[in-house]
Amino acid sequence: MSGTLHGVGLGPGAPDLITLRAARLIEAARVVAYPALAGAPSFARAIAADLIAPGATEIAISLPMSTDRAPAQAAYDAGAADIAAHLEAGRDVVCLCEGDPFFYGSFMYLHARLADRFPVEIVPGVTSLTACAARAGRPLAARNERLAVLPAPLDDATLRARIAQSESVALMKVGRHLPRVRRLLAEMGLAGRATYVARASLPDEVVLPLEEAPDTAPYFSMILITKGADPWL
Amino acid sequence: MSGTLHGVGLGPGAPDLITLRAARLIEAARVVAYPALAGAPSFARAIAADLIAPGATEIAISLPMSTDRAPAQAAYDAGAADIAAHLEAGRDVVCLCEGDPFFYGSFMYLHARLADRFPVEIVPGVTSLTACAARAGRPLAARNERLAVLPAPLDDATLRARIAQSESVALMKVGRHLPRVRRLLAEMGLAGRATYVARASLPDEVVLPLEEAPDTAPYFSMILITKGADPWL
Repeated sequence: MSGTLHGVGLGPGAPDLITLRAARLIEAARVVAYPALAGAPSFARAIAADLIAPGATEIAISLPMSTDRAPAQAAYDAGAADIAAHLEAGRDVVCLCEGDPFFYGSFMYLHARLADRFPVEIVPGVTSLTACAARAGRPLAARNERLAVLPAPLDDATLRARIAQSESVALMKVGRHLPRVRRLLAEMGLAGRATYVARASLPDEVVLPLEEAPDTAPYFSMILITKGADPWL
Repeated sequence: MSGTLHGVGLGPGAPDLITLRAARLIEAARVVAYPALAGAPSFARAIAADLIAPGATEIAISLPMSTDRAPAQAAYDAGAADIAAHLEAGRDVVCLCEGDPFFYGSFMYLHARLADRFPVEIVPGVTSLTACAARAGRPLAARNERLAVLPAPLDDATLRARIAQSESVALMKVGRHLPRVRRLLAEMGLAGRATYVARASLPDEVVLPLEEAPDTAPYFSMILITKGADPWL
């Protein structure tokens, strides 16, 4: 009998935004795996640190900072092989995932490598999408409204077309794209409806009207464009 | 000093998909509020039932089944007035919200009525969006992929245009629109990539390829259209 791979969402960063199910799984885990950007401590591990049992085996999947695909592929190949060895020996593996495993997460690269060979269980987590909306105090969508989730690195024409068609928009992975996106939204007359949120739920969180946001944004930042209060309320 | 209104996301339905923060708030709450469709038990209350303290005051906001707006407005007005009375007396109120308070939730109607007069704290929850993806075993989006969240009641032309432009699509509130949406997706050649999920995480959950889904779907059902494994994996 092989072990089960658990892809466990941890939420946006505050340890108490972990679900009860995720907390119990992590506490009971004998093997945990997590991604780590090369040279930096793992954010996923930091979120769950207080729940990891002292004797647990830890698999850190060290990801290169390069935008080149081959080194990342090699890192996921090696991480998947380490995880597979435990699963084949009948040991469950709990993979720690920032946010939700299937929402812009790196877990999908492990899932693609392992899901056809081993049982997989996904524990959904609170996404940065709703965590940012909560901190901004801005409802995302209601009734028949359309919500578009768009990575900020997309080109101007794509962003412009999609933003124009949705009542609410979340721009993910803002980082170095902030000045360009801010210019684009100003041209569209939407800058005044946009909120900038970085590191939602963490002690160094920032929530600002987009017009007051710093030019240099971290990778874990988002811009929310919402419609505001609905007339029939 | 007035009390604080807590809008607390409960996740998709399984009680252990509640976050640690939400669980602690509910356990400590002296006043809880929740929506209930007229004549039916409250789904939000059912999710959190084991956490509500025996002596807590409960405010059930009874919503009419009608699609008419006036009766719903009156129900939210009355519920907001009940909640405001507790807040004015200095008592915190914990409002129980299915999923996430700001993601297609009824909490936004209370928020719109109370947020300018009282302190509000939102606890984000696991949305049906990622809960359905988890149960379907289908990653939603990665890297620079676009995700569209669309209510199924939108008209065919709107749905068709928006579905064609996104790598991943979640169609919410499928309910009685299932046969129409299934026909539309078949015409677009996408039916084979679509998964139907109803009541994700609950004991009576259903996960099926869309082509095998029943014609009659509950309100809490979703269709996910995802791209599948990415070539560079």
